[in-house]
Parts: sequence; structure tokens; C-alpha cells
Amino acid sequence: MDREPRVVILGGGFGGLYAARALARAPVRVTVVDRRNHHLFQPLLYQVATAALNPSDIAYPIRAVLRKQANADVLLADVVRVDVAARKVILLSGELSYDYLIVATGATHSYFGNDAWEPVAPGLKTIEDALQIRRRVLFAFEAAEREPDETERHAWLTFVVVGGGPTGVEVAGALAEVARSTLKRDFRHIDPAAARILLVEGGPRILPPYPPELSASAATQLRHLGAEVEVNAKVVGIDAHGVLLGDGQTGRRIEARTVIWAAGVTASPLGASLGAPLDRAGRVQVTPLLTVPGHDEVLVIGDLASVKYDGKPVPGVAPAAIQMGRYAARAILDRLGGRTPAPFRYHDKGSLATIGRSAAVADFGRFTLRGFWAWLAWLGVHIFFLIGFRNRLLVMIEWAWAYVTFQRGARLITGEIGQPALPATDGLSPDPRLQPLPPIGDKSPPPP
Amino acid sequence: MDREPRVVILGGGFGGLYAARALARAPVRVTVVDRRNHHLFQPLLYQVATAALNPSDIAYPIRAVLRKQANADVLLADVVRVDVAARKVILLSGELSYDYLIVATGATHSYFGNDAWEPVAPGLKTIEDALQIRRRVLFAFEAAEREPDETERHAWLTFVVVGGGPTGVEVAGALAEVARSTLKRDFRHIDPAAARILLVEGGPRILPPYPPELSASAATQLRHLGAEVEVNAKVVGIDAHGVLLGDGQTGRRIEARTVIWAAGVTASPLGASLGAPLDRAGRVQVTPLLTVPGHDEVLVIGDLASVKYDGKPVPGVAPAAIQMGRYAARAILDRLGGRTPAPFRYHDKGSLATIGRSAAVADFGRFTLRGFWAWLAWLGVHIFFLIGFRNRLLVMIEWAWAYVTFQRGARLITGEIGQPALPATDGLSPDPRLQPLPPIGDKSPPPP
Repeated sequence: MDREPRVVILGGGFGGLYAARALARAPVRVTVVDRRNHHLFQPLLYQVATAALNPSDIAYPIRAVLRKQANADVLLADVVRVDVAARKVILLSGELSYDYLIVATGATHSYFGNDAWEPVAPGLKTIEDALQIRRRVLFAFEAAEREPDETERHAWLTFVVVGGGPTGVEVAGALAEVARSTLKRDFRHIDPAAARILLVEGGPRILPPYPPELSASAATQLRHLGAEVEVNAKVVGIDAHGVLLGDGQTGRRIEARTVIWAAGVTASPLGASLGAPLDRAGRVQVTPLLTVPGHDEVLVIGDLASVKYDGKPVPGVAPAAIQMGRYAARAILDRLGGRTPAPFRYHDKGSLATIGRSAAVADFGRFTLRGFWAWLAWLGVHIFFLIGFRNRLLVMIEWAWAYVTFQRGARLITGEIGQPALPATDGLSPDPRLQPLPPIGDKSPPPP
Repeated sequence: MDREPRVVILGGGFGGLYAARALARAPVRVTVVDRRNHHLFQPLLYQVATAALNPSDIAYPIRAVLRKQANADVLLADVVRVDVAARKVILLSGELSYDYLIVATGATHSYFGNDAWEPVAPGLKTIEDALQIRRRVLFAFEAAEREPDETERHAWLTFVVVGGGPTGVEVAGALAEVARSTLKRDFRHIDPAAARILLVEGGPRILPPYPPELSASAATQLRHLGAEVEVNAKVVGIDAHGVLLGDGQTGRRIEARTVIWAAGVTASPLGASLGAPLDRAGRVQVTPLLTVPGHDEVLVIGDLASVKYDGKPVPGVAPAAIQMGRYAARAILDRLGGRTPAPFRYHDKGSLATIGRSAAVADFGRFTLRGFWAWLAWLGVHIFFLIGFRNRLLVMIEWAWAYVTFQRGARLITGEIGQPALPATDGLSPDPRLQPLPPIGDKSPPPP
């Protein structure tokens, strides 16, 4: 080759960015393509959704991350598909040719075919998702405050989180803290602490990848924070007014105005254009070298890759994506040097799931932690990994502040006020659920 | 009266909040109604628009401000009109009766009847406005980076700010800093410092309420930061591709993909339902007691009030709104005690307009400041007035960080990416303005 090989990286998440950075001193030209201008620290996204952090605390411009890397270029663009045969990435406008391609476009939430649930039960993958959830949650308390009808008020104060994985556990715990502590004294007609936070899991226990005793501990810690946990409860219907659980023959309805979806993920649709076999979740089944079979120059990493190590599937977590990103960079350098890369090795450093203030579980394989020490470990790991000193400092201040005061700094309802939480009416007749206000002096909190 | 009089305050801005707080120990029931859940520190909104601050740095939940005030109630609701005769506020759903009413719903930007300009030239009054402008500005640089056509690239890198009042000056100065400093080394195909920032003012000088020598100093400071200033330039047309200036017979077109409107305000439409005469900007012409003629129980304060003091109109600035808010509370207490309030007195504490890093002008009547000292005064005043200790601390950190590093912490493009900046296409054929990318190695910065 008489010019520098071009490495195109699709996706500026953990996998893509670590791959790009690992190529910093390599004799290649790197182009990182993302449809967002920012890298998102997804493990903390639930904190934006629950008003503890600001979007920019957990997001950082990809350009700024790679500013000093002279061989790296950043492109804000939508990728339509990959033409593996022609070694080209087809963008919504234009195309990019590559010598090596790293596909790291991740996953998004999946409604398992029930797409009608999406508008009423938002998931949590982007900044916009998080802001939408924040808006709905804060608005629900406002609507409850002015709702004279007791049944309706209860529905506004009922929050259902679907899915007992780490995200569901984090969201449920954080919502319980918002209701029990943050908003405690802010309302005059309702008692926010009377809000019902319900975590619903279809399987027999929450946090299924963890050891059973940690699942049990997490459920206990959640209940201690004020959230309810229901297992073996399959969601069979969601609408703007509640959730239908498929218990036995009849089904059981829970009236809830706020439902948050944390139940499933599906891989980026880009994987389908690579011509490789996909698993059930749409992830690309790669070789042990993380390549697409038959195309050594195409690597798939992060949540989009389906690969086993030591007989177990590599989980879709940030540390795995980071390791794959670094591996991909090394593998490309090996090939440029005429060497065949060694297979990818996954180092499982353990799992951490946070539940709330001083509440978490940690599984480090040889030993486990729960409660305060697990939470401290979680805190340290997450602050350490936040990209960029600035975000680290601000997040620490926000957390310290929240810890001391029980307050949350980012309690803003922005965007279309009311619209997301209130299903559309014809816009002319008043919403029948919004009745004249009760007399202001008439303080009638809902029964506990 | 055998019950506590009810004071309803419409609007949780400076006027409304200071009125509510001044009634804290009064024997009245206070209800603050706002369609937003947050008070917004509008003087710093331009810093959100230019990616220096986060929304929640300058906004604070109204509930949290009034949490400890036992006689105050907060209601998130849309006000439709006031029925002055029946002493009722009509909400989108329900109504509120009052004994005293304080109307403090402020003003928004006005396009002087050219409503078609609104989608292409956003103004700056709400958090959403600010985020939209931030998105457009950051996206313009991204689009320029991937734009092969030189003319188009120039249009992406041209930013027109319409209106040479304080907001226009602040925005133009901040944009110049973003282009010259923040983004300096982030791009590979363009030189952000080559961006053209143009402040357009219809009158003979910018900052018209200031003494002429300060207007001249502000223009000089702006030019020093890298912005252009054009006075006596009337905007007669705006579309998605640029601005038409009505110079002489022919008009002159400036190709610009980003236009920001800072040219005019109009009062809240609620004023029209009070039955009082309005001025040209729609503000309510109140008595010297800030009441609606014939209705001593209805006070209008802040940007919605049109009142003269000492022969000069009271300006639509935060200190005036704060003074009016406190006055309104005292006036109501006077009336409850059977006394007739004294007329409102406005204490003009001077005016400050910031331009950029170490650049500002200040007019304190007896003396004026410009440059670094004016900027320092501006900094102190604004931090002092930010409601809530937390916001004060975080804003100081953000600013200190920005000062040391020339970076901006909130550089996120959120919301519908591309859509706001790229006018709609049919969604099927590629946007003709987005051509295939130039070869990555072919770095051709636009001519200076």
C-alpha cells in the first residue's frame, strides 16, 4: 500500500472510542463515524433520568476526546449499511471506503415486537430517552398534586419499572429515593413518599446474571428503599393508563401513569448488513478473532458482537466493550504487520449493580459485596471510568451534594410540558381527567 | 374576611418569585402558577445556548424555592385568561379564585408580524430555545466539516445574530469565542476560527439604551473577539439559507445557515385579558401603584408592566422585576391593613452587558466601566443573583474551568439531530446539499 491504511470505526461508544485511542500512534488514518456528536457514559444514564445528573455530566463531544489524536477524524453522519464486498460504508449522504472496519454501533431497547408499548413505556438508551423519563416522572408528581380524584391520583403516583436487570434495579431504586427523600417536602396536597414504585420481573429473580444470594440481597435493599419487587410477573399489555400482568388465567391490571421499560435490548440493525449470522437479539456472531466470517478486515465489537469466551457469552457491558475495542486495534496492527492475531480473551473483572444511596451489590467472582461497601466500589469504578477530568469533578460534586442534602440538581421538566405524560386529546375539549382544582386550603393527602 | 385572603401569582420568574417570598410571613395564602416547573435565570440563558452552561445550572424548581414557605402553594398549569370581574383565573383545566392577583407572566420574543421567520431564526426565551440554538450552532460546524462545496461551507460557517440589544451582543460575543477558542483544534477539514459572526442592528448603534461611548466600546470589543458589527442594517427577509438586508433599493443577501433572533420582545398575551390599555409591545399600562385601572386588587409587574418612573419607562430587566415583586407584596399588605400603598419607586442600579471573556460594558449612571472591570462586575452580580447556593457553586466551577481551558462543558447536540438545521427534504432522495465526502486525506480548509 502506498498510502496509509484507512480504519473506519462506526460508533463512538466505549468500544469505538477505545479502539480509536489505541490506534493513536499507529500508521493508519482513523475515522470515527457517529450520528451523535457525543460519547455517552451509558452506565450513568439512569441518573439523568432520575434528575441527579445533567446530560453533559455523562456525555462528552467525540471530537474533544480525539482532539489531540492527529490521525483521527470524526464524522457526524448516519450510517445506512455496510457494503462488505466493496469495502464501503454507505452513509445517508455519501460513502466512506475502508481498509479495516470496526463496527461498534451497540444495541437499543427492544419491545419484543410490541412496538405499541414504546410511546407509553419509554426505554433508556439515549440522552433524549433519559430526559423524556425525567420529564414524565417529575410531571407525574405535579399532576398528582392537582388531581382531585383519589383513584387518578394513585395512578399518577404509581411508577412501574419493567425488567429486573441492572437498569431496572437502578431506576426503581432511584425513583424510590426521589419520592421518599428528594421531593419529600415539596408538595402541599400529596405525600410523595406515598408513591408506589413497582419493579416487575418476568423471571424468578431480579439481577438474573448474579448469584442468587445477591439477587435476594438486591430485592431486600430495594424494599428497604421503599420500592416493591414482583418476580414471575410477565407483562402482557401496556397502555397510557397502566400495565397488565399475565398472572394465571385472568391477568391483573395495575393502574400507573408512568411506565419505564428496562426489559430487553436488541442489537443495532447495522449488523444485518454485514452478511454474517445473527443471534436471537440481532447480534453478529463473530469469529473468536471478533471478525465477520470470511472478512478478516471487518471486526464487530461491544454490544453488537455475539461471542463466547471460556464457554460463556461475553456480556454486553462497558468493560467488555473497552477490552474488545483495544483488542480490535491490536488485531489490525497485527494484520498490518503480517501477523495473525490471537483470539480475543475476555477478563471478567466482576459485576456491580447499584440500587441507591449506600445500596448496591457487587460480584467479583471470588467474593461478593452488598450494601454500603458494594456501593462505594460502584462509586469509585464509575467515577474512574468517566471520560474526562471535568466530568469526573462535576459528577463528584453533584453526588456529594446529593448525599449531604438528599437533593437532586437536575430537576427540570423541559420539552413539551404535559404532552408526553398526558395522552393526546382533541385539543379542544378539556382533558376529562383534569378536573377543576380542589380548594387550595383543602389538603387531603391520599391514604398511605 | 373569616378566612385568609388568597394571593394568586401568575408566573414564577423574578417578579413572581420575589413577590411570593416577600409574602412569606404574611397572613395570606399564596399560590404561584406557572406552566414550567422551574424558575429560569434568563440573564444567563445565552450561556446555555452557546454551550457554556447546563440548563439546570440556571434553572431551579419553583417548588424547591418555596419549599419552606408554609403559606405558599405551587401549581403547574396553563393559564388561559383572567376574569377580572369575577376575580378568577381560568386555567386550561379548572380555575382559581383570588382576592389579590399579581400578574408576572413576562414577555417573549416577537418577529414583528414575520412569523415565517420563527422556524429559521429561533429566539432565546426558554430552555428549549437555548437548546435549539446550541444544537444548530454545534451542528453547523459539523455540517461544514463534511461539506465539500466551498460556498455551502461558507454558509454553514456564517452566523447572523439579528438585534444589537444586550442579548444580541452577548450571543454574538459568545459565538465568536466558541469559534475562535473552544472549537479551535477540533476539526480536520475546516478552521472554525474562519467562521463569520455577524451582529446586525437596525438602528445607528448597538446597545441603544447605553451611553453612545459605551455602544462604541462594545462594538470595538466585539470586533476584537472576532465578530462583525453592522448597524443601520434592517433585516427584511430570513429563510433557511440566509438573511436579506434592506440596504437602499436593492437589498443585500447574506448566505447563512444559522440565524439567531434577538431583535424584539412582545408581552405575554395574558395582559390582554385584564381589560387595561396596552402599549405597542402588548404590555399593560398600569397605574403608578402597578395596578390595573379600576382594579386595586390586580397588580401587573415585571416585563409585562408598562410604567414610567421619574419620566422614564422602567426597563424590562431582572432588577426592575425584583423591585416590582417586592413592591407588590408590600402593597397587598398595605391594603390588607387598610392603608393605600405609596406609588412604586424604581431604583436604577445601573446596567451591565457582557460581551465575552474579559469584555463587557457597565453603566452605573455616575460612572461607566468597560472591558475587564465591567466584566468582573457583571460576573459578580450574576453569580450573586443566581438563586440557590448549589447553582452558584456549579456555575463558578464551569466558568473557572472555561476561563482556564477555553473549553465549554455543555457541548452536546441533543434532540432531533440535523433536522433543525437541515431544512426538510422528501426523506427519500438524498439532500442535494450533502454531497459525497471529500477524500479524508484531502484537507482543504476554506480560504480565510
